[in-house]
Formats: sequence, C-alpha cells, structure tokens
Amino acid sequence: MANPLVDDRDVAFILDDVLDVARLCELPAFADHTPETFDLVIDSARRLAREQLYPTYRAMDQEPPVFDDGRVRVHKALQDLVPRMAELGLISAIRPEAVGGMQLPLSVAVAAQAYLMAANASAYGYVGLTAGAAHLIEEYGDDDLRALFMARMYAGEWLGTMALTEPDAGSSLGDITTSASPRHDGTYAIRGAKIFISGGDHQITDNIVHLALARIQGAPAGTRGISLFAVPRLRPEHGDPTALVDNDVRAAGMVHKIGWKGIPSLVLSLGEGDNCHGWLVGQPGRGLTYMFQMMNEARIMVGVNGVATASVAFHESLAYARERPQGRPPAAKDPTTPQVAIMAHPDVRRMLLRQKAIVTGGLTLVVAAARYSDLANHGDTEAQRHDGHVLLDLLTPIAKSFPAEYGYESNVLAVQVHGGYGYSSEYLPESWLRDQKLNSIHEGTTGIQSLDLLGRKVMADGGAAIVALAAVVERTAERAVAAGVDRRQATQLRDAMQAVATLTTELGQRGAAGDIEGMLRHSVDYLDLLSIVVVAWLHLERAAAARQRATRLGSRDGFIEGVLATTDYWFATDLPRVDTLVARIRSGEDSFVRMRSEWF
Amino acid sequence: MANPLVDDRDVAFILDDVLDVARLCELPAFADHTPETFDLVIDSARRLAREQLYPTYRAMDQEPPVFDDGRVRVHKALQDLVPRMAELGLISAIRPEAVGGMQLPLSVAVAAQAYLMAANASAYGYVGLTAGAAHLIEEYGDDDLRALFMARMYAGEWLGTMALTEPDAGSSLGDITTSASPRHDGTYAIRGAKIFISGGDHQITDNIVHLALARIQGAPAGTRGISLFAVPRLRPEHGDPTALVDNDVRAAGMVHKIGWKGIPSLVLSLGEGDNCHGWLVGQPGRGLTYMFQMMNEARIMVGVNGVATASVAFHESLAYARERPQGRPPAAKDPTTPQVAIMAHPDVRRMLLRQKAIVTGGLTLVVAAARYSDLANHGDTEAQRHDGHVLLDLLTPIAKSFPAEYGYESNVLAVQVHGGYGYSSEYLPESWLRDQKLNSIHEGTTGIQSLDLLGRKVMADGGAAIVALAAVVERTAERAVAAGVDRRQATQLRDAMQAVATLTTELGQRGAAGDIEGMLRHSVDYLDLLSIVVVAWLHLERAAAARQRATRLGSRDGFIEGVLATTDYWFATDLPRVDTLVARIRSGEDSFVRMRSEWF
Repeated sequence: MANPLVDDRDVAFILDDVLDVARLCELPAFADHTPETFDLVIDSARRLAREQLYPTYRAMDQEPPVFDDGRVRVHKALQDLVPRMAELGLISAIRPEAVGGMQLPLSVAVAAQAYLMAANASAYGYVGLTAGAAHLIEEYGDDDLRALFMARMYAGEWLGTMALTEPDAGSSLGDITTSASPRHDGTYAIRGAKIFISGGDHQITDNIVHLALARIQGAPAGTRGISLFAVPRLRPEHGDPTALVDNDVRAAGMVHKIGWKGIPSLVLSLGEGDNCHGWLVGQPGRGLTYMFQMMNEARIMVGVNGVATASVAFHESLAYARERPQGRPPAAKDPTTPQVAIMAHPDVRRMLLRQKAIVTGGLTLVVAAARYSDLANHGDTEAQRHDGHVLLDLLTPIAKSFPAEYGYESNVLAVQVHGGYGYSSEYLPESWLRDQKLNSIHEGTTGIQSLDLLGRKVMADGGAAIVALAAVVERTAERAVAAGVDRRQATQLRDAMQAVATLTTELGQRGAAGDIEGMLRHSVDYLDLLSIVVVAWLHLERAAAARQRATRLGSRDGFIEGVLATTDYWFATDLPRVDTLVARIRSGEDSFVRMRSEWF
Repeated sequence: MANPLVDDRDVAFILDDVLDVARLCELPAFADHTPETFDLVIDSARRLAREQLYPTYRAMDQEPPVFDDGRVRVHKALQDLVPRMAELGLISAIRPEAVGGMQLPLSVAVAAQAYLMAANASAYGYVGLTAGAAHLIEEYGDDDLRALFMARMYAGEWLGTMALTEPDAGSSLGDITTSASPRHDGTYAIRGAKIFISGGDHQITDNIVHLALARIQGAPAGTRGISLFAVPRLRPEHGDPTALVDNDVRAAGMVHKIGWKGIPSLVLSLGEGDNCHGWLVGQPGRGLTYMFQMMNEARIMVGVNGVATASVAFHESLAYARERPQGRPPAAKDPTTPQVAIMAHPDVRRMLLRQKAIVTGGLTLVVAAARYSDLANHGDTEAQRHDGHVLLDLLTPIAKSFPAEYGYESNVLAVQVHGGYGYSSEYLPESWLRDQKLNSIHEGTTGIQSLDLLGRKVMADGGAAIVALAAVVERTAERAVAAGVDRRQATQLRDAMQAVATLTTELGQRGAAGDIEGMLRHSVDYLDLLSIVVVAWLHLERAAAARQRATRLGSRDGFIEGVLATTDYWFATDLPRVDTLVARIRSGEDSFVRMRSEWF
C-alpha cells in the first residue's frame, strides 16, 4: 500500500472529535464555510499530495538545484507542481475573500498543509514562502503595493521569498547591514548580501519578489533601524508590471543543504551594479516588528512541517515492520518455522508507538495552536480573542520546537526500524531524517524558542499564560474523567500542571529579583518540560474524545484502541519525566554557565 | 587551529590518571612494553590520523566508491592510506608477537584507534575488518590456514571482510542459507548471496579474504548448522598463494550508504559460476560460536567509533563557537557594540558541555572496557581474569550502545551549534552525523544489545555482574571522597547503583517466575539506565583523578576545571534520570506490548 503520508482517520478525529473545528463556522469570519467545505479543501490537498507531490519527492531529493552563472535551475517537476498548488488556492487559503483568498481557518489549512508537506516539503516550500511574503504586503503595504505585487503572488504568478538573514547576522537580525537609499521615484536603492534565501532563484516563475530587511541610510543601529522592502528580481518599469526589467538581484552562490533538496538556499547579491530598486513596505524602521507579527504563523508552519516529516517516515516504517520478516519470538525455538514480521518484536512496537505518540500528539498540537490563532484573529468576543492570543503566544514556541526535536527523534526511529536498509539511500527514511534536521534551526533555533517561551511568553502579564493553560488543562481533565478515562491520568496531568505553575512562579521571582540569567538558565529544559505537559494534555483530550466516540459507537475499534494506548504510553513514559526536569530547573545547576572557553 | 580529532590531554588523563593503564606492563603478556612504548604507538597513530587520514576525509565523503561491471573502485587515496596503517602494525597491534603482532593492550590500542576513526572512520574500517577476519583464522584455523591467509592479512597484503549478513538474514543469523558442499581437495564449494559486506571489493589490494558464514550440506537448521569459511576473491591454486585464480566472488550490487562513504557496502554473489572455493575455519557447525567469541572486541570497536565520531564533531563545534560572532549578552543593549562569539551564550556552552560529557565519558568507557578485556585475557590470576571477564561482558553492550546513541545526540548538537551552516555540506558536522547513525545498527542494533545485556549478561550467574559492578563503583566512591570530591556525588552514585541492583533482582525474579517477556519488556530502558550509571561512575572516577592531580600540582588548571564541571553536569543532568527509568521499568508499563499491528 502506498504511504498515506498522514493518517486520514487521525485528521478527522482531531478536527471533529478532539478540537471540534466545525464550531469555527459559527464565527462571522468563517460563516461562508461548512464542515463540508473544510473537507473539500483537505481532500483536494490530500489528493494532490498523494498523486502528484509524493511521487516526485525522491527525484527532487536526488536531483538538487543546479547553480550556473548566477541563475538556478530547480527540478523541472516543480514547474508543474507549484502552479497546481496555486490553482487549488493554497497560497491564499487563509487570506480574506477580499484579497482573493478562501478565508479558511488556519486550523483547517494546517491539516491540508500536513499532507502537502509530508509528501514533498520543499515543493510546498515555494507556496508557504510566497504566502508569507504576500501576507506581509497585504498587511503592511499600501494599495499601490498590493496592486503591484500581492495579487500576482497570491495567484502564484510571481513567487516570493523571505530575505532576512545575512552572512554576519543569522539569529541576530539587528545586525543586518543591507542598505536602502531613497531614490527620486519613491523607491529605494538596495545594496547588500543575503544568505540562506530559500527559493531565492528558480525558473518556476519569471519573477520572484523578495521581502527583504534593509537599513535606510541614517537609520539608528540595531533592530529599530530596520525596514522592510519588496525587492523583485524583475522590476516593473515605471510601475508597469507588464514591462519588466532586470532589477540587479543576483544569485551569488548556493548553499548545499543536506535536505529540502527541491528548493535552493541561496546567497543573494542585491544591487551589485547599483541598479536594485526596493519598495518600502509600511513604515520605515518597522521591518522587524512586521516580521515578528508574522512569526506565530511562520513558526506554526515549521511545526506542521516537523509533524509531517515525522508522519511520512512513521508510516513508511510501519509498513516495513508489517512486511519485513526477521527472527522469531523468544519462545519459538524451532529454527525451521518461518520468520515473523518484525512487528511481532515488542521493541519494534515500542519504536512504532513512540513515533505514533510524537506524530499524533504533534499534529494535535499544531492544529490546536492554529485553532487558537483562528480564535485570536476572528473570535466572537474580546474575551475569546484575548484568550486565543494568550494561548497562541504560549503554544507557538512549543508548536515550533516539539515537532522539530521530538519529530527528529521519531525520524531516527523510522530509520532504526529499517535496520541496515534504513542506513541506505535505497530507502526513504534517511532523506526525511535530513529534511527534519532543518526544523530545529530555521525560524529561530530551539534555544531561541526556549528564551522566547520562558523570557517573554510565560513571564508576560504576571504569568497569565500559565494560568490560562492551567484552566484549559483542568477542562480536559474533567472531560476525561467524565468520558471514563482512568482518573489517575487526570490526576497525573493536574499534578504536572501544578508543578509547572509553581516552578514558573519561582522562576518569575528570580527574574523579579534581578537574576535574569538564573531565571533563563534552563530555558531549554523548561521548553522541554512544558512541551511534555502540553502534549500530555492533548493526549488526554484525545483519550477523552476516543472514549466518547466508543460510547457513541457502542464499541471500540482499532483506531480508538490505538489512541488510548498512545495516551497510556505518553503518560507512562514522558509525563513522569516532569519531576526530574522540574528538579533540575529549580536546582539552578550551573555547570555549563561556569564553564569557560579554555576549560573545554 | 586544525581539528585535534581527540583531546590529547584527555587521552593521557584517562590512561595515566583515571585507569592507570601503565600497570598493565606488570602483566607477563605486556612485559615487553613500557608506558613509553604505549605513547609511541599512540603518537604515531595520532600523527598519521592528523596528517594523512583527516585531510582525505572530506574527499572520500564526497567521492564515494564506484560500482562498475562487478568491480568496485574506491577513493584512490586509500591505496596510500591503508598500506601506511598496515606499516604501523595497526592490523595486528593487539595480536601476539608470535603471529607478528605488537602484543599491545587493547586499552592502548583503543586510544590509538580513536584518533584514526575520528580522522577517517571508513579508511580505518579496512584495517579493523581485516584485523577481525585474520583474528578468526588465527584463533580457529589450523596451521595451514594461518600460513595461507593470516600472515598476509596481518601484513595488509591481503585485506579481509566479515561476510555474515544475507538479504533475508540480518539480525537473525540462524536463517542464513549460503551453502557449502565438500569438494575432493578438502575445500568446500560455496554458493549464496551476502549483503552489507563492508570493503567487499576494492582495488586497494588484489586479494580480499571474506570470512563467510555458510551451511554445510546436511547441517541442521538454525544456528547450530552454521560453519565459518575463508573465501578469498582470488584463490591460491593448489594452495600456492603466488598462483592466484579467480574464485567466483562477484560484487553483485552496491548499497548506497548515507555515511562511511570511503568503504563500500556490497551485495556479494558467491559461486554463481559454481567455482567458488571456501576453506573451513575450525570445526563444522561452530561458525556462529566463533563469531560470538569475537563479539566483545568488535562491539567495543563500534563504541570507539561512536566516541571518535562524536569527538571530532565536538572539537569542530568548539572551534566554531569560539570564532563565530553572533548576538550579544541579554544585558548588552547597545547595538553598536561588537557581536560576541557564540561561546558567550550559556545555551551554547550547555550544548558544548553536553558533548564533552558524552565524548569524555564515552572515551573513558571504551578504554575501561578494553582494560577489562586485557585483564580477562592476560590477567595474572584466575580471579583477575574472571573479574575482567565478568565486567567486560557486562560493559560490552554499554560500550557499544552508549557511544552510538548518546554519541548521535552529541553529533546532533555539533550541527546545532553551527546553526544554518550546520545544515549545509559546506561544513563537516553533517557528514559525521551521517557516519554516526550506523553505530546503532551494525554489530547488533541497540535493541539487540539491550536484550544481550539484560537477558544474558546481567542475569548470568545469579546476577554476579551487577555485584561486581557495585564493588568497583564502591571503590570509586571511596577514591572520590578521599580525593575531596563532594560527598553528595559519591552518595548519589551509590544510591543509583543500589537502585539498579534492587531493580535487577526484581526483574530476575520475574524471569525466574517464567515471565521472560515481562523481565525483558523495558530492556532498552534498562540499557539506558545502566549506561547512565556506568558513565556516572566513570565521570566520578575522572573527578577523583582530577582532584588528585590538582593536589599533586598544587593548583587546578583549565583541564582539571573542565573535568570537574563535566562530572557536575552529568550528576546534575543525567544521573537524576535514574529514578524515572527505574520506576518505568519496575511498573511493567505495557502499552506497546498490547499494541496490535492494526491499532497503529
């Protein structure tokens, strides 16, 4: 059987049973939608993913882009695939109808994207990046800029990129040096170098619009001096989009990435010939602010990718475990009996169940975060929007990092299940392992996510986010008990949440006393801790929903059994790690802080 | 500064201060050696590693072997490197002088190998495999066989392979089907297919001797029917090694491995033309027994490789962290101040210290295991040999798996420290990440190691191995307290060891009551648990040795500070995980055991 990429039953279960996404249709913003239109979108993405994107994945991994004389040629299949995704409206799926979008809830879009990313992450990458770039123009550009760039980008006629990073300013965006000088026609002369620009050149579309950060001459140093520009590869001469001339944007080099081989990562040289025009987007000096306002969405997208990349590998190793004969159970001493499928070995089932726990927990997490985004942006009441914002902000670094880190572990297990074959490029798991590694690095490393979580999100408003999380956790615990889930699991989750809340208060006090380093010292552990608890919360919600479904059906099917066993696994294996993590964070253990460079 | 591959100070510290390997010279087997001859061997290996092997590593990774018409061409640098390693006597380093070896303790050889493997694992692979193959002939072959094959292999004139695995018998060696039929001249006609044969063909030497498992016609099914054969690529016609004819061994295909690119992994077809002769090694039906008697050494070699591969990447990321400017400390708000080296960020030091803890703990572990092997084989007294055997057997699955699993985590961190550059093949950490992944798979997967540990090693002789381990742990605790190490660390280690011992007794009782599945259910967790405790034991021994050195010197230098902080880190970060692991193993948690194929 072909790899399903993502489990259809699980997608339906999360949307319908666990998170009741259908209720979003009650909100005015989504009033034109019905559960049926949601299904249509997901189903068309799923079919495109299975029938078109996945069959080209391997070829794209094996035939990476070619850099030649300042231009880049990407895999030719992309010239067909990207327009197909654009035709389905995927670039503007969550944007308002007013700008040509489907006005789809992000939570529904995420489910559709999971299939596309699982099928072929780098092919979807062009869509995701273009959506982000066009969204910036929609949100902060004026009508002229929207008319010039946005509509063509949402239609997939021109693709887009995010051009932030520079060779000496990766995670430290305040240090970018690309310059912008005002020109007489209202545009700016751009000059500088960008690096790691995904999709920075290709032959899929003639034009590519780079959303680039640059510093207007005379602007202050640091983050406050950074502005946002639209810098097309071909510029509309005198604002005429049908008269395009070269805009002095050169691919100066290609980074040889270890995964995501379908989309090139480029060094771009802007204005080497002093002939690169950029269109200011929004206000001068607001570039980073605009970028950060888009950050939640971008980071959730990374999370979806992490889940998707783990999911496709999980399904591959599941099929392999069902088919590959090797060895016999310990009790079967007769060597003339046939070998059994490796699924029969408990440790193989352990590796599969761990993957399942990470993949299904991760998928629930990213959809849940997206649902809070939907409520934050389109909620009925101020309170709904406020709560949505608080939980979205809290969950975003977790939704970004948990799939990146635990997803990577899951991808390692998919290789391991394949044994020696997993170590070869004749089998696919190693390619997903390479793909997945990016997710702990781009859009803010795991370390940066952890500082964002503990230093900003958790400490904001006197710890309001943890209070809000504790409230939804309590609701889940109640739902679970009512649905017949073992009370001990509800208690275990409540205790873990309480331990996190108490620890957080203590850390806040350390910070308030001026010991910021001490507060943040174990931020990565704190991120891990909160991730484990959040995923436990969602697994308990899944168990509750599964039991309610069993009650409705009058019986338990294999899917329900699988959900319940996965929750049991997480509560027995990961949730107990909370105590050790809390103790370590609380202890203030400082061996690595004390370390000096010369001691290593 | 060039990558040192392995820290010279740490090698000297482990051999001299921690494990006092010099005392091995008191044993008759090593009486011809002195600490100076040990140093000479290590130093010559170190120089070869740094000056010859490491500079060719990248080229070998980027230009993998070419398979063409039944022959394989490997990187041409190997035609120079392999003879150089042979000239240094590395193939027979630990073998007796009687067979042309250096009669070097394995513990010293391991230190030398660490440099070679860190420099270029696949180049060293030819040496390691040939050593293993020749050792089998030395140990189990008769004089004729030794005369024909062994000496040429130890001299590097003919290289060797281990040809065990078959397409349908990977981990389940009892299922191999390659056949051997007696021929009139005393040899056997071999026929079958082997897979994953490392170094199975190349142009480095004309002849290659495959140590192959096959089943003599009429032999019983299963492991008892398997015999060991020497199957050369070119056979000495009428036993004349100067008259070589083709022996009908064909490279039938090449596996495209994701790492170890310097050494090909081949499908070998034996006797397709009914003209492949094999020389029986030892007694019929004893092939697997012979192989397993070599297993400790082979598994320690994998462990050394895991440590070495983590070590070279650790040093690469350490140098990068010292040089790469990025960002500023949280307190430095002025964006016009220069960026700091990323070493200044506590979380980067955390990632480096974790690597250091894994690498130095792992190196101490593999040298310690090798030292028990030296005592087991060459100890003065029956008691010394017995204790050496018991601890060697216990430590072997840990020495194999800890570097493979934690070493992989360490390699992931080396990539992460490099940020976006770590995701590119312009930088080396990603190549070591690929290399390292093999170590959890070959020579018995981590799952298989865990069953060996818990099912065999720990349960043998009523749990004698854990008693022996507890005794050496206690000696370390006493040494540590005497040396001035914080008593709490000694107590923490004793408590952890006691917890393991109690748990082990309970598991033994489960097994004795007939619940073998229940006893072995959490074997991978048990392996992890014991690994953490064993590495904590060795880190405490390191701290004790470091304090003793400080007392001798009258001061602490940076190296000593680094050792002490690393021990603090492990005791604060990993050793506390013991409680959670013990609780989980004890609980009998069975979610994954209950899982059925159709529930996934």
